[in-house]
Amino acid sequence: MASGVQDRSECCFLEWMRLQEQSLSELLQALNPSQPNGNELTQLIQKGVEQFQHYVDQRSQLANADVAGFFAPTWCTAWENSLLWIGGCRPSSFIRLVYVLCGLDLESKLEEFLGAGGGPPGRLGELSARQLVQVDGLQRRTVKEEEKLTDKLAALQEDVADQPIAAIARGLSRVGETCGELDRALDEHEQAMLAALLEADKLRLNTLKELVGILTPLQAADFLAMSKKLHLCVHEWSKKRDQRHGRVDQGN
Amino acid sequence: MASGVQDRSECCFLEWMRLQEQSLSELLQALNPSQPNGNELTQLIQKGVEQFQHYVDQRSQLANADVAGFFAPTWCTAWENSLLWIGGCRPSSFIRLVYVLCGLDLESKLEEFLGAGGGPPGRLGELSARQLVQVDGLQRRTVKEEEKLTDKLAALQEDVADQPIAAIARGLSRVGETCGELDRALDEHEQAMLAALLEADKLRLNTLKELVGILTPLQAADFLAMSKKLHLCVHEWSKKRDQRHGRVDQGN
Repeated sequence: MASGVQDRSECCFLEWMRLQEQSLSELLQALNPSQPNGNELTQLIQKGVEQFQHYVDQRSQLANADVAGFFAPTWCTAWENSLLWIGGCRPSSFIRLVYVLCGLDLESKLEEFLGAGGGPPGRLGELSARQLVQVDGLQRRTVKEEEKLTDKLAALQEDVADQPIAAIARGLSRVGETCGELDRALDEHEQAMLAALLEADKLRLNTLKELVGILTPLQAADFLAMSKKLHLCVHEWSKKRDQRHGRVDQGN
Repeated sequence: MASGVQDRSECCFLEWMRLQEQSLSELLQALNPSQPNGNELTQLIQKGVEQFQHYVDQRSQLANADVAGFFAPTWCTAWENSLLWIGGCRPSSFIRLVYVLCGLDLESKLEEFLGAGGGPPGRLGELSARQLVQVDGLQRRTVKEEEKLTDKLAALQEDVADQPIAAIARGLSRVGETCGELDRALDEHEQAMLAALLEADKLRLNTLKELVGILTPLQAADFLAMSKKLHLCVHEWSKKRDQRHGRVDQGN
């Protein structure tokens, strides 16, 4: 019934990576002029958030048919999988990235001021005191939500060594036997894992939306571009590392 | 240089699963008589702990060459990978299993007392008050250590969105380009992930050793047998689920 879910999930991811590349290129192009067009940036940011919403919706449908496949996807590299938190990035990473970009921009400005050259100017160095307070508040709330979900996943992982699964395993006369009671217990566990994945995706999406709402269009476009570039870089770098370690290239 | 690490890591896991099966069968045989031989049980328990120590040592060597591969092993099923905590089971699961076995044994005794039949008798229902206090202390310490390591992994996962990796990605003119500075940063990150994996393995091993030290030989043998049976069952059950979801059978 669910045959091919794995393939569809991989296609969904590959399409998402293709969109990331396309959006990055559009954002960089729009950010390139010395006076970028505010309307164009706002549209691109809106499009970026909508694409993420669409990706999350698709994942939700696919995970409904096969949730386990999203916790360590075969279409991701080993390094990417080692970085996963409940099937995706940690939502707090978005905020960490804003802080690091802000710091880098301030460094560049200082270097420019000192006549030491400095890198290309970014817009995250211009965060106002009010914005910083908002970002800080978002970070504290996000970390708290992450911790709650981390605890929920821990409880689910431990549930396997508890009733009813452990009791069923004990009663089996042969290792790996199945029965109706077991199937029901595993289905129930899958549903709970699915709920955790959907909550994590929702937290990722909401954190992104709220963050983009705090930033100006210029800042948000700069942040989104960098977030996509980093994601694409991690994927490419780790593909090279996977090949070096003798892992089959998934072709993505 | 590191070519074939992936295959060697898979062989190491398959050999471990083979040993789990063999140990389970030896333990069940030794536990079968109404008056099991204490010396034989002690030897089997000692052997079980030594085998785990050997497995951990082998993993340490293999992870030294390719740590990422241990966080979502290709030789494990999707469901197993969704249950992983830093490359293996949660050490607190061992203790959870002791509690559930204790509860099941007490239920069986009650049913027997009430003339309602009851399951086969286990030995974990005979934990003394002193043992329960010791197990409880071990659980609290283990959960605290798990939390510390969980936080360490979270920090490592977020480091990718921070200096120096994010700064290097920002400076690249083409997505996925590499440079000496990047290689050094990724190597350093790998070393930190390796340290977390080794600490987690050490916690798993020490928790098992301490737990077995609290239990009598009869109880420890019962617990070890059940722990191995559950692990083997989870592997077999999830292989069946993987096949149903169109994932390739890894042949393990």
